[in-house]
Amino acid sequence: MALASNIVVLTGGVGGAKLASGLLDVAPAERLTFIVNTGDDFWHLGLRICPDLDTTMYTLAGLVEPTQGWGLRDDSTVTLDALQANYGLEPWFKLGDKDLATHLLRGEMLRRGDSLTDISARLSRELGIGARLLPMCDAEMPTIVETDEYGELGFQEYFVKQRWQPAVKSIHNRGAAAAGVSDAVKSALTAADIVLFAPSNPWLSVAPILAVPGMRDLLAALDLPKVAVTPIIGGDAVKGPTAKIMRELGLQVTATTIVEYYHGVINGFVDDVRNDLCQFDGLRATRLDTLMQDQNDKRALAEAILNWIAEWRS
Amino acid sequence: MALASNIVVLTGGVGGAKLASGLLDVAPAERLTFIVNTGDDFWHLGLRICPDLDTTMYTLAGLVEPTQGWGLRDDSTVTLDALQANYGLEPWFKLGDKDLATHLLRGEMLRRGDSLTDISARLSRELGIGARLLPMCDAEMPTIVETDEYGELGFQEYFVKQRWQPAVKSIHNRGAAAAGVSDAVKSALTAADIVLFAPSNPWLSVAPILAVPGMRDLLAALDLPKVAVTPIIGGDAVKGPTAKIMRELGLQVTATTIVEYYHGVINGFVDDVRNDLCQFDGLRATRLDTLMQDQNDKRALAEAILNWIAEWRS
Repeated sequence: MALASNIVVLTGGVGGAKLASGLLDVAPAERLTFIVNTGDDFWHLGLRICPDLDTTMYTLAGLVEPTQGWGLRDDSTVTLDALQANYGLEPWFKLGDKDLATHLLRGEMLRRGDSLTDISARLSRELGIGARLLPMCDAEMPTIVETDEYGELGFQEYFVKQRWQPAVKSIHNRGAAAAGVSDAVKSALTAADIVLFAPSNPWLSVAPILAVPGMRDLLAALDLPKVAVTPIIGGDAVKGPTAKIMRELGLQVTATTIVEYYHGVINGFVDDVRNDLCQFDGLRATRLDTLMQDQNDKRALAEAILNWIAEWRS
Repeated sequence: MALASNIVVLTGGVGGAKLASGLLDVAPAERLTFIVNTGDDFWHLGLRICPDLDTTMYTLAGLVEPTQGWGLRDDSTVTLDALQANYGLEPWFKLGDKDLATHLLRGEMLRRGDSLTDISARLSRELGIGARLLPMCDAEMPTIVETDEYGELGFQEYFVKQRWQPAVKSIHNRGAAAAGVSDAVKSALTAADIVLFAPSNPWLSVAPILAVPGMRDLLAALDLPKVAVTPIIGGDAVKGPTAKIMRELGLQVTATTIVEYYHGVINGFVDDVRNDLCQFDGLRATRLDTLMQDQNDKRALAEAILNWIAEWRS
């Protein structure tokens, strides 16, 4: 049965966290593992900021700010305001005061030599999270976006400072050659019964995970349901630059493009009922309402996906 | 005239900042230079915390919390509370949210190679301070307190964690051999007309300044009024461990002990009217009301000291 399966989810930020929240409603937390994109991570004022890990972590802890879907709820920005008021620093990256505690502690632990995997485990445990939260790897693998207008931009410069407006020519992860799949990721995938690709941005959020040397081969070798959930609904992204980037890279904004992008690492696909009817060759596909606006939607989608996968085996 | 003199003040934290505040009322800011103890400085969560520099800086900027005499007024502790509530960290060292901005920025500037002297100049400028704020040196020279009970303790462990309760056997500054007087300190002393030793703790706050290699010789060679203000009033310290440490080191808690401690680097002494009448050989001395409880007291003491020194020349 799907509910007793070990479920591993490859995920980015807000979109993936919605599915995470739904899964937590229908599956035992201790059976859930999230392998999270760390290409967005950066050092800022000595803080180590891991946006996708934190969005997932705060969501799993039930502490996430519900309107924007990231950051901690009921947070303030006293420090950020003081950096601007007292020292003239432009607050281009929003940092809440409660949120700062996470970045301070993580930065300190990294400087004293702890791995991001161990740190994420400790922070999760302290926050009372039952699910497992794993960074995609322990090495730094920053996502670099090559743009028409500015050349190469670090991810946060592209995404936050430039509000993802420059046209994207290509995307890669610096430092990938020196990175590797961690033991924790390896054993999570080895013990997996189901692998899900969250409806995160394939190019910005999932590509870095797949770029960790060894990750593609590990996934390709798994003989079990490996299912991607479409990030394209009604021919567009729910939010963020997915569709815009697809157009800039010369790709059609369709579910077919997503399926082709994940060729070799998935064998199942959850399309949205709003998309044009597509024929997907060589893999199982279903059509569901994948738009997650409230907790009911999230739970319903998670349940429908797991039920559909359960049918594969019967 | 004293009011047109270049005044250099060797100072520690709260006690010295009171005199700084008084001096600012009676002398032009651009004639005032504060050489500040950095033996208390420490790294904490990737932040560089410089308690005495900040106490002096916030005081000169008119931003200091008036009741405790350190930290920023109207500050909150959201981050510190979150470190405890979310991650179980004991908040042994108080960090305000506004105050954090200073430590974050300074830590970042140090990591990228700026000197503490340059950083202090920039932070002061941003806060609109007209006086000059100089760390005693740029190298790290942490104060180590050897105690009966715990052996060697870092300054903050002794002072904040243990609330200066362990008996002190000796005090020294680690890293002193590799430190040196900065160009900024050298030129401030060269241009000085008056040098004041603030009524800070001689053993904890002024000793580290004098322990910077070259500092004693520089001060000894200056042919100008070099005046220490007594930290002992009525046979005790106003606050803090000065008297307690003197007893633990086998010293008498008298103004005479202070004068002997500063032998060779001062030629004048401001005693308090409440102390037993002492005979000080080989230097000029006066008796003033040195207890600074409000801004009037601070201004009056600063004015009285400068007026007394002005008489030396007439």
